[in-house]
Amino acid sequence: MDEVGGGDGYVLHPVGRVLSPLTDAASAPRQGDEGAPAAWLVFDPQVEQALRDLRVGVELLVLTWLDRALRDVLAVHPRGDESRPETGVFSTRSPHRPNPIGLHRVRVLAVDGLRVEVADLEALDGTPILDVKPVLGAADER
Amino acid sequence: MDEVGGGDGYVLHPVGRVLSPLTDAASAPRQGDEGAPAAWLVFDPQVEQALRDLRVGVELLVLTWLDRALRDVLAVHPRGDESRPETGVFSTRSPHRPNPIGLHRVRVLAVDGLRVEVADLEALDGTPILDVKPVLGAADER
Repeated sequence: MDEVGGGDGYVLHPVGRVLSPLTDAASAPRQGDEGAPAAWLVFDPQVEQALRDLRVGVELLVLTWLDRALRDVLAVHPRGDESRPETGVFSTRSPHRPNPIGLHRVRVLAVDGLRVEVADLEALDGTPILDVKPVLGAADER
Repeated sequence: MDEVGGGDGYVLHPVGRVLSPLTDAASAPRQGDEGAPAAWLVFDPQVEQALRDLRVGVELLVLTWLDRALRDVLAVHPRGDESRPETGVFSTRSPHRPNPIGLHRVRVLAVDGLRVEVADLEALDGTPILDVKPVLGAADER
Protein backbone atom coordinates (compact mmCIF):
# COMPACT_ATOMS: atom_id res chain seq x y z
CA MET A 1 0.00 0.00 0.00
CA ASP A 2 1.01 3.58 -0.54
CA GLU A 3 2.69 5.37 2.27
CA VAL A 4 1.07 8.60 3.34
CA GLY A 5 4.45 10.24 3.67
CA GLY A 6 6.53 11.55 6.50
CA GLY A 7 9.60 13.48 7.42
CA ASP A 8 9.66 17.05 6.30
CA GLY A 9 6.62 17.18 4.05
CA TYR A 10 3.78 15.29 2.47
CA VAL A 11 3.24 14.99 -1.27
CA LEU A 12 -0.17 15.68 -2.78
CA HIS A 13 -1.12 14.02 -6.03
CA PRO A 14 -3.97 15.85 -7.80
CA VAL A 15 -6.97 13.65 -8.70
CA GLY A 16 -8.23 15.95 -11.47
CA ARG A 17 -8.55 19.54 -12.67
CA VAL A 18 -11.16 22.28 -12.75
CA LEU A 19 -12.50 23.22 -16.19
CA SER A 20 -14.00 26.71 -15.82
CA PRO A 21 -14.62 29.90 -17.78
CA LEU A 22 -12.75 31.73 -14.97
CA THR A 23 -9.16 32.34 -16.04
CA ASP A 24 -8.23 35.55 -14.24
CA ALA A 25 -7.94 35.85 -10.45
CA ALA A 26 -8.63 39.59 -10.54
CA SER A 27 -12.08 39.15 -12.05
CA ALA A 28 -13.08 35.93 -10.25
CA PRO A 29 -15.60 36.11 -7.42
CA ARG A 30 -14.06 35.78 -3.96
CA GLN A 31 -16.42 33.02 -2.85
CA GLY A 32 -18.58 30.54 -4.71
CA ASP A 33 -21.85 32.08 -3.54
CA GLU A 34 -20.85 35.53 -4.83
CA GLY A 35 -21.69 34.92 -8.48
CA ALA A 36 -19.37 32.08 -9.46
CA PRO A 37 -20.27 30.19 -12.65
CA ALA A 38 -20.85 26.50 -13.20
CA ALA A 39 -17.67 24.52 -13.86
CA TRP A 40 -16.62 20.94 -14.57
CA LEU A 41 -14.53 18.77 -12.28
CA VAL A 42 -12.54 16.56 -14.66
CA PHE A 43 -11.17 13.54 -12.79
CA ASP A 44 -8.27 11.24 -13.65
CA PRO A 45 -9.20 7.67 -14.64
CA GLN A 46 -7.27 6.31 -11.63
CA VAL A 47 -9.93 7.65 -9.21
CA GLU A 48 -13.00 6.48 -11.13
CA GLN A 49 -14.06 4.19 -8.26
CA ALA A 50 -13.82 7.05 -5.72
CA LEU A 51 -16.38 9.18 -7.58
CA ARG A 52 -18.75 6.41 -8.67
CA ASP A 53 -21.47 7.38 -6.16
CA LEU A 54 -21.63 11.13 -6.90
CA ARG A 55 -25.19 12.06 -7.92
CA VAL A 56 -26.96 15.11 -9.34
CA GLY A 57 -28.23 17.41 -6.60
CA VAL A 58 -25.82 16.48 -3.81
CA GLU A 59 -23.78 19.14 -2.00
CA LEU A 60 -20.04 18.58 -1.94
CA LEU A 61 -16.91 20.12 -0.50
CA VAL A 62 -14.20 20.30 -3.14
CA LEU A 63 -10.61 20.72 -1.95
CA THR A 64 -8.20 22.22 -4.45
CA TRP A 65 -4.57 23.31 -4.63
CA LEU A 66 -4.54 27.07 -5.25
CA ASP A 67 -1.60 26.89 -7.60
CA ARG A 68 -1.48 30.63 -8.25
CA ALA A 69 -1.30 31.57 -4.55
CA LEU A 70 1.71 32.70 -2.52
CA ARG A 71 2.91 30.59 0.41
CA ASP A 72 4.98 33.14 2.29
CA VAL A 73 2.15 35.59 3.03
CA LEU A 74 1.04 35.35 6.68
CA ALA A 75 -1.18 38.45 6.98
CA VAL A 76 -3.41 40.29 4.49
CA HIS A 77 -5.96 43.07 4.25
CA PRO A 78 -9.24 41.06 4.10
CA ARG A 79 -10.71 40.91 0.59
CA GLY A 80 -7.85 43.11 -0.61
CA ASP A 81 -9.47 46.14 1.06
CA GLU A 82 -6.65 48.39 2.31
CA SER A 83 -9.05 50.18 4.66
CA ARG A 84 -9.40 46.97 6.67
CA PRO A 85 -6.62 46.16 9.13
CA GLU A 86 -4.04 43.56 8.20
CA THR A 87 -5.19 40.21 9.57
CA GLY A 88 -3.46 36.87 10.10
CA VAL A 89 -4.34 34.54 7.21
CA PHE A 90 -5.72 31.83 9.54
CA SER A 91 -8.54 34.34 10.26
CA THR A 92 -9.22 35.00 6.56
CA ARG A 93 -10.13 33.06 3.42
CA SER A 94 -7.23 34.57 1.47
CA PRO A 95 -5.77 32.11 -1.08
CA HIS A 96 -2.33 33.20 0.11
CA ARG A 97 -1.29 30.98 3.08
CA PRO A 98 1.41 28.46 3.96
CA ASN A 99 -0.50 25.51 2.47
CA PRO A 100 -2.83 27.05 -0.14
CA ILE A 101 -5.67 24.51 -0.04
CA GLY A 102 -8.95 25.84 -1.43
CA LEU A 103 -12.25 24.74 0.12
CA HIS A 104 -15.34 25.13 -2.06
CA ARG A 105 -18.94 24.19 -1.33
CA VAL A 106 -20.71 23.23 -4.55
CA ARG A 107 -23.82 21.41 -5.81
CA VAL A 108 -23.68 18.71 -8.50
CA LEU A 109 -25.50 19.67 -11.71
CA ALA A 110 -24.53 16.75 -13.96
CA VAL A 111 -22.41 13.61 -13.97
CA ASP A 112 -20.86 12.34 -17.20
CA GLY A 113 -18.35 9.56 -16.57
CA LEU A 114 -15.19 11.16 -15.21
CA ARG A 115 -16.64 14.68 -15.53
CA VAL A 116 -18.87 16.25 -12.87
CA GLU A 117 -20.53 19.62 -13.45
CA VAL A 118 -21.00 21.77 -10.35
CA ALA A 119 -22.62 25.12 -9.53
CA ASP A 120 -20.94 27.97 -7.66
CA LEU A 121 -17.24 27.20 -8.06
CA GLU A 122 -14.91 30.21 -7.89
CA ALA A 123 -11.72 28.21 -8.62
CA LEU A 124 -9.78 29.21 -11.73
CA ASP A 125 -9.53 27.09 -14.87
CA GLY A 126 -6.88 24.39 -14.49
CA THR A 127 -6.85 24.39 -10.68
CA PRO A 128 -5.77 20.95 -9.40
CA ILE A 129 -8.40 19.01 -7.45
CA LEU A 130 -7.17 17.27 -4.28
CA ASP A 131 -10.25 15.73 -2.70
CA VAL A 132 -14.05 15.70 -2.67
CA LYS A 133 -16.13 15.14 0.46
CA PRO A 134 -19.89 15.09 1.10
CA VAL A 135 -21.39 17.86 3.20
CA LEU A 136 -22.34 16.15 6.45
CA GLY A 137 -26.01 15.94 7.34
CA ALA A 138 -27.36 15.43 10.85
CA ALA A 139 -25.53 12.82 12.96
CA ASP A 140 -28.31 10.24 12.60
CA GLU A 141 -28.14 10.35 8.76
CA ARG A 142 -24.42 9.57 8.40
CA MET B 1 8.92 34.03 -2.83
CA ASP B 2 8.16 30.37 -2.31
CA GLU B 3 6.93 28.42 -5.25
CA VAL B 4 3.65 26.66 -4.75
CA GLY B 5 4.95 23.65 -6.64
CA GLY B 6 4.15 21.95 -9.89
CA GLY B 7 4.87 18.99 -12.03
CA ASP B 8 3.83 15.69 -10.56
CA GLY B 9 2.91 16.72 -7.04
CA TYR B 10 2.72 19.49 -4.47
CA VAL B 11 4.54 19.41 -1.16
CA LEU B 12 2.70 20.24 2.05
CA HIS B 13 4.64 21.61 5.00
CA PRO B 14 2.76 21.14 8.29
CA VAL B 15 2.27 24.35 10.31
CA GLY B 16 1.82 22.55 13.64
CA ARG B 17 0.53 19.41 15.36
CA VAL B 18 -2.55 18.31 17.28
CA LEU B 19 -2.05 17.59 21.00
CA SER B 20 -4.94 15.37 22.08
CA PRO B 21 -5.84 12.61 24.54
CA LEU B 22 -6.97 10.58 21.48
CA THR B 23 -4.22 8.15 20.50
CA ASP B 24 -6.12 5.21 19.01
CA ALA B 25 -8.13 5.39 15.79
CA ALA B 26 -10.36 2.48 16.83
CA SER B 27 -11.69 4.32 19.88
CA ALA B 28 -11.78 7.85 18.43
CA PRO B 29 -15.18 9.35 17.52
CA ARG B 30 -15.86 9.42 13.78
CA GLN B 31 -16.76 13.13 13.72
CA GLY B 32 -16.02 16.02 16.05
CA ASP B 33 -19.65 16.42 17.11
CA GLU B 34 -19.91 12.78 18.16
CA GLY B 35 -18.18 13.13 21.51
CA ALA B 36 -14.68 14.33 20.60
CA PRO B 37 -12.66 15.90 23.43
CA ALA B 38 -10.97 19.27 23.62
CA ALA B 39 -7.47 19.34 22.12
CA TRP B 40 -4.64 21.81 21.57
CA LEU B 41 -3.42 23.02 18.21
CA VAL B 42 0.32 23.61 18.71
CA PHE B 43 1.70 25.84 15.96
CA ASP B 44 5.25 26.27 14.72
CA PRO B 45 6.88 29.65 15.48
CA GLN B 46 7.22 30.37 11.75
CA VAL B 47 3.42 30.87 11.41
CA GLU B 48 2.92 33.06 14.49
CA GLN B 49 1.74 35.98 12.34
CA ALA B 50 -0.86 33.81 10.58
CA LEU B 51 -2.63 32.91 13.84
CA ARG B 52 -2.33 36.28 15.59
CA ASP B 53 -6.03 37.15 15.16
CA LEU B 54 -7.54 33.88 16.45
CA ARG B 55 -9.88 34.64 19.38
CA VAL B 56 -11.78 32.64 21.99
CA GLY B 57 -15.26 31.70 20.80
CA VAL B 58 -14.69 31.77 17.04
CA GLU B 59 -15.56 28.78 14.85
CA LEU B 60 -12.76 27.46 12.67
CA LEU B 61 -12.15 24.86 10.02
CA VAL B 62 -8.93 22.98 10.75
CA LEU B 63 -7.33 21.08 7.88
CA THR B 64 -5.03 18.21 8.85
CA TRP B 65 -2.98 15.50 7.17
CA LEU B 66 -4.43 12.15 8.26
CA ASP B 67 -1.05 10.51 8.55
CA ARG B 68 -2.40 7.12 9.62
CA ALA B 69 -4.76 6.81 6.62
CA LEU B 70 -4.35 4.69 3.47
CA ARG B 71 -4.12 6.39 0.08
CA ASP B 72 -4.97 3.49 -2.20
CA VAL B 73 -8.48 2.87 -0.88
CA LEU B 74 -11.13 4.18 -3.33
CA ALA B 75 -14.30 2.62 -1.88
CA VAL B 76 -15.35 1.73 1.69
CA HIS B 77 -18.31 0.52 3.71
CA PRO B 78 -19.48 3.81 5.31
CA ARG B 79 -18.52 4.09 8.99
CA GLY B 80 -16.95 0.61 8.75
CA ASP B 81 -20.44 -0.94 8.74
CA GLU B 82 -20.27 -4.05 6.50
CA SER B 83 -24.06 -4.07 6.16
CA ARG B 84 -23.85 -0.80 4.20
CA PRO B 85 -22.93 -1.07 0.53
CA GLU B 86 -19.39 -0.21 -0.53
CA THR B 87 -19.31 3.46 -1.54
CA GLY B 88 -16.80 5.59 -3.44
CA VAL B 89 -14.71 7.57 -0.92
CA PHE B 90 -15.62 10.93 -2.52
CA SER B 91 -19.15 10.25 -1.20
CA THR B 92 -17.91 9.42 2.33
CA ARG B 93 -15.89 11.04 5.11
CA SER B 94 -13.56 8.03 5.37
CA PRO B 95 -9.99 9.05 6.27
CA HIS B 96 -8.80 6.63 3.59
CA ARG B 97 -8.64 8.51 0.25
CA PRO B 98 -6.05 9.52 -2.37
CA ASN B 99 -5.14 12.75 -0.55
CA PRO B 100 -6.05 12.15 3.12
CA ILE B 101 -6.82 15.70 4.19
CA GLY B 102 -8.94 15.94 7.33
CA LEU B 103 -11.52 18.72 7.70
CA HIS B 104 -12.63 19.53 11.23
CA ARG B 105 -15.04 22.19 12.45
CA VAL B 106 -14.04 23.38 15.92
CA ARG B 107 -14.59 26.25 18.37
CA VAL B 108 -11.74 28.09 20.07
CA LEU B 109 -11.68 27.65 23.87
CA ALA B 110 -8.37 29.33 24.71
CA VAL B 111 -5.39 31.02 23.07
CA ASP B 112 -1.96 30.85 24.71
CA GLY B 113 0.75 32.12 22.37
CA LEU B 114 1.41 29.44 19.77
CA ARG B 115 -1.11 27.06 21.40
CA VAL B 116 -4.84 27.21 20.66
CA GLU B 117 -7.30 25.02 22.57
CA VAL B 118 -10.35 23.87 20.62
CA ALA B 119 -13.52 21.89 21.35
CA ASP B 120 -14.78 18.89 19.36
CA LEU B 121 -11.64 17.72 17.54
CA GLU B 122 -11.60 14.03 16.60
CA ALA B 123 -8.06 14.12 15.13
CA LEU B 124 -5.51 11.81 16.79
CA ASP B 125 -2.61 13.04 18.90
CA GLY B 126 0.32 14.14 16.72
CA THR B 127 -1.75 14.72 13.57
CA PRO B 128 -0.05 17.37 11.38
CA ILE B 129 -1.99 20.62 10.92
CA LEU B 130 -2.03 22.02 7.37
CA ASP B 131 -4.27 25.07 7.52
CA VAL B 132 -6.87 26.95 9.55
CA LYS B 133 -9.74 28.92 8.02
CA PRO B 134 -12.63 30.87 9.53
CA VAL B 135 -16.15 29.54 9.07
CA LEU B 136 -17.75 31.98 6.63
CA GLY B 137 -20.65 34.08 7.87
CA ALA B 138 -23.25 35.70 5.65
CA ALA B 139 -21.89 37.37 2.50
CA ASP B 140 -22.35 40.90 3.92
CA GLU B 141 -20.21 40.11 7.00
CA ARG B 142 -17.07 38.94 5.16
